[in-house]
Amino acid sequence: MSSKDAITPREQDYSAWYNELIEVADLAEHSAVRGCMVIKPYGYAIWEAIQRQLDDRIKATGHLNAYFPLFIPKSFLQKEAAHVEGFAMECAVVTHSRLKKGPDGQLVPDPESALAEELIVRPTSETIIGESFARWVQSYRDLPLLINQWANVVRWEMRTRLFLRTMEFLWQEGHTVHADFDDAEAETSRMLEVYREFAESVLAMPVYVGKKTEREKFAGAEHTYCIEAMMQDRKALQAGTSHHLGQNFARAFKIEYLSKDQKQQTAYTTSWGVSTRLVGGLVMTHSDDKGLVLPPAVAPIHVVVIPIRCGKPEERAEVEAYLAPLLKRLEGVQFKGRPVRVHVDMSDQRPGAKHFTWEKKGVPVRVEVGPRDMKEGNLVYALRTTLGTEEGKKTIGRDAFGEGLVALLEDYQRGLLERARAFRDAHTRDVDDKAAFEAFFTPKSEERPEIHGGFARAGWCGEGECEAQVKERHKVTVRCIPFTGEPFTGACVWCGKPARAGQPRVLWAKAY
Amino acid sequence: MSSKDAITPREQDYSAWYNELIEVADLAEHSAVRGCMVIKPYGYAIWEAIQRQLDDRIKATGHLNAYFPLFIPKSFLQKEAAHVEGFAMECAVVTHSRLKKGPDGQLVPDPESALAEELIVRPTSETIIGESFARWVQSYRDLPLLINQWANVVRWEMRTRLFLRTMEFLWQEGHTVHADFDDAEAETSRMLEVYREFAESVLAMPVYVGKKTEREKFAGAEHTYCIEAMMQDRKALQAGTSHHLGQNFARAFKIEYLSKDQKQQTAYTTSWGVSTRLVGGLVMTHSDDKGLVLPPAVAPIHVVVIPIRCGKPEERAEVEAYLAPLLKRLEGVQFKGRPVRVHVDMSDQRPGAKHFTWEKKGVPVRVEVGPRDMKEGNLVYALRTTLGTEEGKKTIGRDAFGEGLVALLEDYQRGLLERARAFRDAHTRDVDDKAAFEAFFTPKSEERPEIHGGFARAGWCGEGECEAQVKERHKVTVRCIPFTGEPFTGACVWCGKPARAGQPRVLWAKAY
Repeated sequence: MSSKDAITPREQDYSAWYNELIEVADLAEHSAVRGCMVIKPYGYAIWEAIQRQLDDRIKATGHLNAYFPLFIPKSFLQKEAAHVEGFAMECAVVTHSRLKKGPDGQLVPDPESALAEELIVRPTSETIIGESFARWVQSYRDLPLLINQWANVVRWEMRTRLFLRTMEFLWQEGHTVHADFDDAEAETSRMLEVYREFAESVLAMPVYVGKKTEREKFAGAEHTYCIEAMMQDRKALQAGTSHHLGQNFARAFKIEYLSKDQKQQTAYTTSWGVSTRLVGGLVMTHSDDKGLVLPPAVAPIHVVVIPIRCGKPEERAEVEAYLAPLLKRLEGVQFKGRPVRVHVDMSDQRPGAKHFTWEKKGVPVRVEVGPRDMKEGNLVYALRTTLGTEEGKKTIGRDAFGEGLVALLEDYQRGLLERARAFRDAHTRDVDDKAAFEAFFTPKSEERPEIHGGFARAGWCGEGECEAQVKERHKVTVRCIPFTGEPFTGACVWCGKPARAGQPRVLWAKAY
Repeated sequence: MSSKDAITPREQDYSAWYNELIEVADLAEHSAVRGCMVIKPYGYAIWEAIQRQLDDRIKATGHLNAYFPLFIPKSFLQKEAAHVEGFAMECAVVTHSRLKKGPDGQLVPDPESALAEELIVRPTSETIIGESFARWVQSYRDLPLLINQWANVVRWEMRTRLFLRTMEFLWQEGHTVHADFDDAEAETSRMLEVYREFAESVLAMPVYVGKKTEREKFAGAEHTYCIEAMMQDRKALQAGTSHHLGQNFARAFKIEYLSKDQKQQTAYTTSWGVSTRLVGGLVMTHSDDKGLVLPPAVAPIHVVVIPIRCGKPEERAEVEAYLAPLLKRLEGVQFKGRPVRVHVDMSDQRPGAKHFTWEKKGVPVRVEVGPRDMKEGNLVYALRTTLGTEEGKKTIGRDAFGEGLVALLEDYQRGLLERARAFRDAHTRDVDDKAAFEAFFTPKSEERPEIHGGFARAGWCGEGECEAQVKERHKVTVRCIPFTGEPFTGACVWCGKPARAGQPRVLWAKAY
């Protein structure tokens, strides 16, 4: 597909739309290593914006960044029984430390360099960090220990998708140690709330919060909390998780402390993380058939200026002189803690081609300046979400534009959140009947298998067997047991037995 | 060694001093994986300060960040002949993608998961990035392509040292593509200058700049430029390198472009990097026998306040009330683009123990406030480099201190650079005679093998054979051929043949 072509509409083929969008917006590409992606500069700039703003929140809640080894000795993974089942089975195994030239001149692993113990490329770092924490924690005075790491991790995925599921991905993983269960619980909840607030206020991505079922929780956790977002194909994306690890890892790695009353105690730990998957979630929450739509809080460029005429040096000089006071005014102006970035596109493309390029890249505000605008001290702006409509085009004084820009971005950011919330709410429904439940998750047509009802709130007996059957039949899972909602006194939507006592309707959906 | 003990003095055992300092300042530790370090929060905060300020400079010179795969197919390393010799031989080789339970219940690599082609954990990314660049570069319009990556890399080192030489380390690696040799040369020089300026103005680390010899250049480069710093044991630390890769990688990976006159041309590439090794360099440039000394530009904490009395709640309240206007005043105040950070140590240690702790951690400014100071509106401050001397202690009005703090930090930063430069200059000497040269590099005593002359500027014939002999005999190498300096018309200090024409005295030193 040439980058000049329009992309496949969502309604026609959602999956093709996503892949083509990632390509035309220049976010990422597949690499020569199966399952590993290359994050291109425009996509990486979005990740940097995510990192910066999430890192601020992680630090503001008292956590310190640190860095632990990429490699985990094989034996470490075996120390926590549930964890090894979840993570050791599909992973990158380092077995040798040297290559040598074989008889045909090609490189081969040198048999003499075989490692005594194989190393695993970290799929997650509870084990290797646990080993350090056992040394760092000696006394109740050392608690709570609140650490975060920004790192790459590797999980040997067979079916990969740019950003959503890749063999290597970038993430942050928080790891904390606490004196007792309740303090660990408070941390688990606190970080879930940080994720919720971050998803909504920075990514403009509304999320449901709740608890994972036993089947869906992290391998080695007591329980897992999560934020779940709805994509435009009405599927769920698990956008962040926070795990209460109880004493499982603390026992395995002997993270113990001397309490105030001089008793040796086993500590409690938590972990929590979000990853580059969020970039995929962003794309699928806001974008449209014309290309990317970005919340200004993570947009690499906030405003693109397209001069109607800038082919000749004197035209360029005139445009530059006209824009100078505006750019000067915006120096040092910030939106959500990041400098407002304006890009003036003086390239030798025609204005139409420029429109198309920046529309695909989702720049929130497009500004045009033509000879008449300059004479009148004006410019014409339009928001990415209303491009192409006549009412979307607004003429405004150059200085007034500069003055109102932050408020404009705030409105736009809020509008994206509201639009996404309205979409999600429109496709979230209470379903109490098995036939209705099955119909809800049945594709509307064979040609568009991705279009189904969305999220169903329905009763659940609490049995893993029901979950397994629903997954098998409809590829639908319990995304979470919401924290809020009236206790549901009806029946399990699948087996008809009473729903688990005291539990609200749970959230069922297809998921990425 | 307990963290309460003093550390071994530099003069007694430099190597022990370094290791103990890293430990007591809480910068890093060895992990369970041989050769891999854990960067602890205080050490990582220094790295973050380095990252942030260097990243700003990399972006200001037009580079964009991106991210490429951790793994490199074995065959990629073979495509550039010199490169494979330099990097493929000692590396982490991934051969399997799954573990399974063996007969004894222990995990073993699943033979069925053996990879068709082994993957190498990147030791540097010229090859895997070259593969992408070949796709990204099509026309002269795509050039120059200016990319940077922040990442972890792995080199299978046998003898490791925290920060200075570790199996895994963190770094940035710039990779750029240019239309011709000269443009690549300009980039290579530009980034060396960015490193020089950064080392001196941020790390307060004076550096020599120059070109590596053929023996010492990067495997696959046309030539390598470097910055070289002198540590306090008078050994050199290569602190950053910038490589002109000519067409070596462009040919291997077919990075080609259509020129303006419609001809298919092979491009030119460069690469350049600095790593967490800089943290080790910082330590060895400034620190003393009492612990760490940090330039304020990278210090995680700028000012530590130690109240004389804060044991009782009312004492703490009084101290807090007294400091509030100062802390308020410093809100939003920055030093070199980072917020000025003040830590008030209200912990239950005695003041003496607090002094000792923060002295070891190298906090630039220590402030004491006692009851009398508070009554008089004063505080007592001292700089880390003059702690313990009576003239180092200064009484000043609380408000005046706040007002003058940035200037104080600027002075201190400048002072550290000057002190380091004076030390380096005092131990850099022109040496024209072979016997003098050998004496210069001979340890002063068997007990202190690390104390020798320092850097020698001496003639060199340009032959690798002389370099090899000097390295073999004295562990001394040509650190660089300086860019500046009069052409030297004397003899090679080793073989006595004429020095290479038009070349200044070269810089010889022992090195990390």
